[in-house]
Amino acid sequence: MGIHFGVDYYPEHWQRDRWETDAELMKEMGLAVVRMAEFSWHKLEPQEGKYDFAWLDDAIDLLGRYGIRTIVGTPTAAPPAWMVNRYLEILPVDREGRVRGFGGRHHDCQSNAVYRGFVRKIVTAMAVHYKDNPNVIGWQPDNELGNSHHDLCMCESCRKNFQGWLEKKYGTVDRLNEAWGNAFWSQEYNEFSEVFTPGITVTGENPSAMLDWKCFCSDLIVDFMKEQTDIIRKYCPNHFITHNYMGFADKVDYYDLGKELDFVSHDQYPGGFFADESHGRGDILASTLDVVRSYKNKNFWIMEQQSGITGWEVMGRAPAPGQLSLWSLQSVAHGADAVVYFRWRVCAMGTEQYWHGILPHSGNPGRRYYELKEMIQKAAPLMEKMEGSMPAPKVGIVYSFRQNYALQIQPQNPNMSYTEQIQEYYRAFYDRQIPVDFVPDDGDFGKYKLLVAPLQYLMNSELEERYFRYVKNGGHLVLTMRTGVKDETNICMTDRELPGRLSELTGSEVLDYDCLRDARVSAVFQNESHTARNWCDIITVKEGAEVLAVYASEFYAGEPCITKNEYGQGCCYYIGTEPDEAFMAALVRYMTDAAGIAALGNADEGVELAAREKADRRWIFAMNHTDRERTYSVDSSYRLVYGEEAGKLNGYEVQILEREDLR
Amino acid sequence: MGIHFGVDYYPEHWQRDRWETDAELMKEMGLAVVRMAEFSWHKLEPQEGKYDFAWLDDAIDLLGRYGIRTIVGTPTAAPPAWMVNRYLEILPVDREGRVRGFGGRHHDCQSNAVYRGFVRKIVTAMAVHYKDNPNVIGWQPDNELGNSHHDLCMCESCRKNFQGWLEKKYGTVDRLNEAWGNAFWSQEYNEFSEVFTPGITVTGENPSAMLDWKCFCSDLIVDFMKEQTDIIRKYCPNHFITHNYMGFADKVDYYDLGKELDFVSHDQYPGGFFADESHGRGDILASTLDVVRSYKNKNFWIMEQQSGITGWEVMGRAPAPGQLSLWSLQSVAHGADAVVYFRWRVCAMGTEQYWHGILPHSGNPGRRYYELKEMIQKAAPLMEKMEGSMPAPKVGIVYSFRQNYALQIQPQNPNMSYTEQIQEYYRAFYDRQIPVDFVPDDGDFGKYKLLVAPLQYLMNSELEERYFRYVKNGGHLVLTMRTGVKDETNICMTDRELPGRLSELTGSEVLDYDCLRDARVSAVFQNESHTARNWCDIITVKEGAEVLAVYASEFYAGEPCITKNEYGQGCCYYIGTEPDEAFMAALVRYMTDAAGIAALGNADEGVELAAREKADRRWIFAMNHTDRERTYSVDSSYRLVYGEEAGKLNGYEVQILEREDLR
Amino acid sequence: MGIHFGVDYYPEHWQRDRWETDAELMKEMGLAVVRMAEFSWHKLEPQEGKYDFAWLDDAIDLLGRYGIRTIVGTPTAAPPAWMVNRYLEILPVDREGRVRGFGGRHHDCQSNAVYRGFVRKIVTAMAVHYKDNPNVIGWQPDNELGNSHHDLCMCESCRKNFQGWLEKKYGTVDRLNEAWGNAFWSQEYNEFSEVFTPGITVTGENPSAMLDWKCFCSDLIVDFMKEQTDIIRKYCPNHFITHNYMGFADKVDYYDLGKELDFVSHDQYPGGFFADESHGRGDILASTLDVVRSYKNKNFWIMEQQSGITGWEVMGRAPAPGQLSLWSLQSVAHGADAVVYFRWRVCAMGTEQYWHGILPHSGNPGRRYYELKEMIQKAAPLMEKMEGSMPAPKVGIVYSFRQNYALQIQPQNPNMSYTEQIQEYYRAFYDRQIPVDFVPDDGDFGKYKLLVAPLQYLMNSELEERYFRYVKNGGHLVLTMRTGVKDETNICMTDRELPGRLSELTGSEVLDYDCLRDARVSAVFQNESHTARNWCDIITVKEGAEVLAVYASEFYAGEPCITKNEYGQGCCYYIGTEPDEAFMAALVRYMTDAAGIAALGNADEGVELAAREKADRRWIFAMNHTDRERTYSVDSSYRLVYGEEAGKLNGYEVQILEREDLR
Repeated sequence: MGIHFGVDYYPEHWQRDRWETDAELMKEMGLAVVRMAEFSWHKLEPQEGKYDFAWLDDAIDLLGRYGIRTIVGTPTAAPPAWMVNRYLEILPVDREGRVRGFGGRHHDCQSNAVYRGFVRKIVTAMAVHYKDNPNVIGWQPDNELGNSHHDLCMCESCRKNFQGWLEKKYGTVDRLNEAWGNAFWSQEYNEFSEVFTPGITVTGENPSAMLDWKCFCSDLIVDFMKEQTDIIRKYCPNHFITHNYMGFADKVDYYDLGKELDFVSHDQYPGGFFADESHGRGDILASTLDVVRSYKNKNFWIMEQQSGITGWEVMGRAPAPGQLSLWSLQSVAHGADAVVYFRWRVCAMGTEQYWHGILPHSGNPGRRYYELKEMIQKAAPLMEKMEGSMPAPKVGIVYSFRQNYALQIQPQNPNMSYTEQIQEYYRAFYDRQIPVDFVPDDGDFGKYKLLVAPLQYLMNSELEERYFRYVKNGGHLVLTMRTGVKDETNICMTDRELPGRLSELTGSEVLDYDCLRDARVSAVFQNESHTARNWCDIITVKEGAEVLAVYASEFYAGEPCITKNEYGQGCCYYIGTEPDEAFMAALVRYMTDAAGIAALGNADEGVELAAREKADRRWIFAMNHTDRERTYSVDSSYRLVYGEEAGKLNGYEVQILEREDLR
Repeated sequence: MGIHFGVDYYPEHWQRDRWETDAELMKEMGLAVVRMAEFSWHKLEPQEGKYDFAWLDDAIDLLGRYGIRTIVGTPTAAPPAWMVNRYLEILPVDREGRVRGFGGRHHDCQSNAVYRGFVRKIVTAMAVHYKDNPNVIGWQPDNELGNSHHDLCMCESCRKNFQGWLEKKYGTVDRLNEAWGNAFWSQEYNEFSEVFTPGITVTGENPSAMLDWKCFCSDLIVDFMKEQTDIIRKYCPNHFITHNYMGFADKVDYYDLGKELDFVSHDQYPGGFFADESHGRGDILASTLDVVRSYKNKNFWIMEQQSGITGWEVMGRAPAPGQLSLWSLQSVAHGADAVVYFRWRVCAMGTEQYWHGILPHSGNPGRRYYELKEMIQKAAPLMEKMEGSMPAPKVGIVYSFRQNYALQIQPQNPNMSYTEQIQEYYRAFYDRQIPVDFVPDDGDFGKYKLLVAPLQYLMNSELEERYFRYVKNGGHLVLTMRTGVKDETNICMTDRELPGRLSELTGSEVLDYDCLRDARVSAVFQNESHTARNWCDIITVKEGAEVLAVYASEFYAGEPCITKNEYGQGCCYYIGTEPDEAFMAALVRYMTDAAGIAALGNADEGVELAAREKADRRWIFAMNHTDRERTYSVDSSYRLVYGEEAGKLNGYEVQILEREDLR
Repeated sequence: MGIHFGVDYYPEHWQRDRWETDAELMKEMGLAVVRMAEFSWHKLEPQEGKYDFAWLDDAIDLLGRYGIRTIVGTPTAAPPAWMVNRYLEILPVDREGRVRGFGGRHHDCQSNAVYRGFVRKIVTAMAVHYKDNPNVIGWQPDNELGNSHHDLCMCESCRKNFQGWLEKKYGTVDRLNEAWGNAFWSQEYNEFSEVFTPGITVTGENPSAMLDWKCFCSDLIVDFMKEQTDIIRKYCPNHFITHNYMGFADKVDYYDLGKELDFVSHDQYPGGFFADESHGRGDILASTLDVVRSYKNKNFWIMEQQSGITGWEVMGRAPAPGQLSLWSLQSVAHGADAVVYFRWRVCAMGTEQYWHGILPHSGNPGRRYYELKEMIQKAAPLMEKMEGSMPAPKVGIVYSFRQNYALQIQPQNPNMSYTEQIQEYYRAFYDRQIPVDFVPDDGDFGKYKLLVAPLQYLMNSELEERYFRYVKNGGHLVLTMRTGVKDETNICMTDRELPGRLSELTGSEVLDYDCLRDARVSAVFQNESHTARNWCDIITVKEGAEVLAVYASEFYAGEPCITKNEYGQGCCYYIGTEPDEAFMAALVRYMTDAAGIAALGNADEGVELAAREKADRRWIFAMNHTDRERTYSVDSSYRLVYGEEAGKLNGYEVQILEREDLR
């Protein structure tokens, strides 16, 4: 049987005489893989150039004897104190010019040459050491790259690297000046070496410089990881390499990072970073899993699946009985091929003393152990059968890191967020039980009957062309306000009215607009009154386009709010505002009906349906995110393969149904 | 015809081949002047000592051919990157000791000798170059001096300058120690060179040192500008010099700054710095214009009048049809002799991409262009006729930067603000359609029947004497709580009970008081119950004074709250608390009736009446700040010269009425 | 007659010719002692090494002639500017690496060798100078040590001192690594010299390092003061030494600091640091006085008793007539043997211009002077009689600085606070008119019938043993959730289930728990429904223990919430949650009834009863904290010795009753 469940394990935190007990308990529970050693740099290199892998060898061997394989983490998220003391320049500098010190993690400047030298050396040593270890199957370089970085790093090394990156991108400083619009406020540079990193100013900042800075930071992280993956691939060609992503986290462009990986992994914490509620909304959890699947457009692993209360200085709510299993199977439903829990036993020391594992501090199996064990033993054989299957939605939502960056720099309305708007569209499909893919803007649009592309703020002729082609070939495209505002360097388009050339597709122009701030606007759609928020494009319709909704308040009452335009074989919707939940639901119902897209079934509120399929077989997962009894129904050709009474779910219950596919 | 309308123009941000189109459109619209070149240092001096004025010459000439004159801005708000890189010490340092970097504007230490050298050189070069250009009529040194400065600058250069400023002011360090009360907490200095700038401490700060620091910062800005105006006056004796103020902004004492100018200008943004609402309260907008008029006690220009949505990273609300015209004419009503719009075309690049101009990004004239064009063509001839006219209120409100500084340092109650209290008094007159002047505390009090002097916190014998004389000569004076608390160095008076010698004028003493914090107090005035807030002086009335209001709650219920005392030919009110809106309205009604001051007319809520007059003629402006129909009435001797149906205003409509003056 | 009332006096802030008037007014009022000279370093050492004590000698002599004795403060909270300029390294550095500058107070690094040298020299000079002055009776080193320090100091000197402190504590770096759990996130040190101070990191911090840092900071302050007390004791063996504490302030462990003092003093400001309300809740004020008494388990002085509005930049509410007397006598009721007011006359200059004294700025006696004078003249003779008496509660609440530190580092629930929980328990006893002692965890538990030990988070075998012994000998012990979680180095216990070995005492174990965050949980106690918050231990009861309350909501509805277990001669309660006010009241009623503890009497809400006793006599103070009439009753054997009509209190009135003790 393949590997379907595992756990993150830190033998170095515990007495040796406990290790075998842990291995026995893991095996008994059905775990087949562990991830180890990320963060343990000092244990692996206690002094400069002196490596010690013996303890890790022992742990790998012991676990191997219990049939448990190992993913090795490189420890580069935690440079040891000896290194920091000797080379203080590896510490990162923040926007305010403050050095961020030792005592946490990721206290490193990823561009620093000294640091990169240490990284190369330890990764090489590890790769050489483990290349032939039969129990080692794969690698995770570093940990959650991009997490905890915020605005880092603004040190002199990063400044020089940024200058070099710009020179490579723009060639001449004149082109840089033009691309950044440096004529504004006298910001022209005479040489690349004059460019500053964007630290705190007296007031204001250049949005084009900020966008390049964000892209540079992303590229730096990709480069930082690539240096490791290159070494590992050289020595360990038969091992896989993955990395633990964090859903919608955005410091690094996960599409780019994914190019260096065999498959991506994800850390799924429905309880969040010890949030106030025991779990996020079901649709948010689902969207997070779907976006992770999109990063390489293939199934993924969960490298850290929540296994108890999360917490650092404070803790979140306790998962109720059933929730840990529910969340595990939700991951599988959306494309996880393996689920690795974080962590085996809650740590006794350090920052994460209250980030709970499967086992409590005492090490005695309790409620969490027994619940997961039961689920694993039922689910693992099913997952074996599912191998090769994947969700296959007919709706795509375009998701782009660059659009997100640009809108973070200038949100237009302080209440407006690219990611939130993406998730609002997602939610409307989720509530209708219609599966969704995310797709990069250079992805395969043709797979989708309906393609939603919110806030296409930065535009270029290639992307315009892709949208034209998609619609021409019969696609139903959804565009929204703030589309075509900027070119790729974050400078406003000035050659046409909004949305630029795409106005041929939308059949309309935007000559005026209003930023609603905290106010709401009324609108009428299908004779129903609705509300919308954040932004109002006042649309001038050109011949042929259909007005679907009009505003009903403000000085533009009566003006078009949403339009639809037939073009080629397809059509293009233009949504000039941000509909509220009910408005969005009505709109999505209209658009999916028009595109002929059917739901997976019907279900009470709080129940999620999700599907995986392969050539000859399909599965539907029915998942109750509430603590109350709920019902659902799907096509009668499905039969229950996990759960008790098909169609009736107890609180937090999951059922899985299967059918042979008649295609 | 004189110059009444203009626009801020940045030809350097656009292709040359567009310039002529711009000039044509401007002329067609009725614009007669542009401001250019402030912020364009790099374009004017691309390398150290190499000047290039050709592009600006071309723009001035082209516009001149269309009859449009130029005001030249000096670019000293935006030192270029080559300068910053070569002389890092010109960057300013904030209270926390952080260097504020390149990338915005005003990233300069205004005391720095290197920087001042560069400033002198470029201003001299520009003055010499443009002294005989027939299309250049005036100058604006730098931009919005004092704006964006906050607590800057605490660098070593400023420390030394501050020490020198103190030595000049106090002569000996003993007098400094006495003036600052340095005996408290062992803060005595033995030499001026020991004095620190007031950066972050462990806890607490010296209020006298803070006051001198604020005055030093103001003087530094005056000195910084004066160095430029001296140069310009030397070479260009026939050009006017003005500067764009920001209403109640307070980093620099605008009275002092005005001494170097021919007239002051103001940047009027009713939409604020992209505030949540589309515009500020009508009374706030009006008070801002009135205070600007007071800075030189003469009419002024608007150098930046809002011409669309304001915005940086986020945007404010869109001005509705009519609002841009309304705001323009409100400026005129309060004394603007010319209105220059900011900006011609919304910038495509940099921080201000969403600070909208008359034209949108596309450059095509739209709603804003056509609305303003229509208004300008009707209003400009009227403004020609108004030349030499000015508002002439009978009510003065004393406004002082030093009082403001002292009360910012120690607001007494965290909810109490000098400026807000000033504006609360203003509002009560505004709501009664009674025009108001602001007046400095060394201004001409004798013009006013009623003089309101809130929070005369810092006191000296000269100012006391001015108040005594004003009342003795028949003036009605309003004093309030927290008067006479401190001497000029921000040290508490100890020789008498509050309000010091002025108690002879008020006929009362304050032996006890309460700081209300968030609580409200009840009071009875003219048999009506009212509420007040922030502060309660418990007044001990001396023989002869009349009690106008008493407290009705707290342990001082029954004690006097407001008193009136006849003195000489006049009288003095003492208001021991901060009346709420209705209380203030009743009080102002009482006081204006007593002083025999009449309103300009009657009007519905949301309508403002304002007047300009000269020897033989008067105008009343009726302005509807709401989006609904409103009515008003004025003396029947006025006839409508702008607008449709006298007395009836559509949403945002302005009417202007005129009469010959019978005086 | 002994010294019962005094005042803090700053003659150096006023003209010499006023001093004698002050002395006369003090004497007339009944004041017998002043504290002087703390903060006046520059006046005492105007230049390096040049001392000038003449002004202070004069003041001491003059006051002495009026029978007023002096407590001398050392001025080490305010190093002068000449010192700071010459030795910039004495300025402290905060967590963010920012130097905190001159201009406030406590701008000193207490570990800095240069600074310590200056401290030694001036304290020695003063001790030598005043050792034989008959009017000097005692000393206060520095001022409010620990106040205003926050996270200071992180300079290089402190880093080295911290390393030395750690080396002394742990001996070897291996033991440090183990104690701090440095295996987590690769934080192992190879040498003590590698240890960093805990400044800002990229993310996260080590809770064990943080705890040692807090203990180091406390020890540093103790050491800083001890250097001064050692000098003073050497030269002035007949003078007492005290220090002004601040109730529950926690930067320094006040138990440790007290070891160097003859008695502790306290600064009592019911109006707080200019809080929004005129005074804190009566129970909070009372608990503050009780905790101060606990620091040396003996009576204390008030060194700063509020004498008017408090204020710096802003002010608090004015104390109503009667409140200053009420607060003074509340201090006496809880064990103050002398009450010294802060301050004589409100300062005219510097940060504390609005921290009001007995006299206003004018220096003329007013409401506050006459009220306090009347009270002092009635109360002082009574206090003479009370000499040797002290409160003697039967309830103890364990209070520990280390538990507080550990729970500040990791509050578990962001709404949970060690000090607040302590005060919630306190309040329930206060509301029942049952006096309470606080007691350190190495204090004498045996005095108490009921001992409440909330949140015994850090545990060691010695403390366990003390609890076992207390209960075995008949004590009633109250333990709560989060007990026994950690060892002394802030590392989680892993050898047993919670609460560790104490589960034998509680008769229960905690295998699961929930952090409620903002939610509330329902519980049933004595057939009544109650609510609780912050935390829920899900208790597994072992044989013999009694379930007193169960949860009524969440997935653990029906599970035990509070248990009681008989053990030896006594019993142990375990409270698995944080009861709300009514729940706590019911619980405390149950527990005090079970322990046979009686109230001092009955009283209306807002009235506090407190008692002092000695061998042959007892007093009850009845204190009305409201502004309305209130009643109370106590045993009829008491007779009224202060006040008008026994049992009936006007607003803010205090009555004192006395009886001979029949024991």
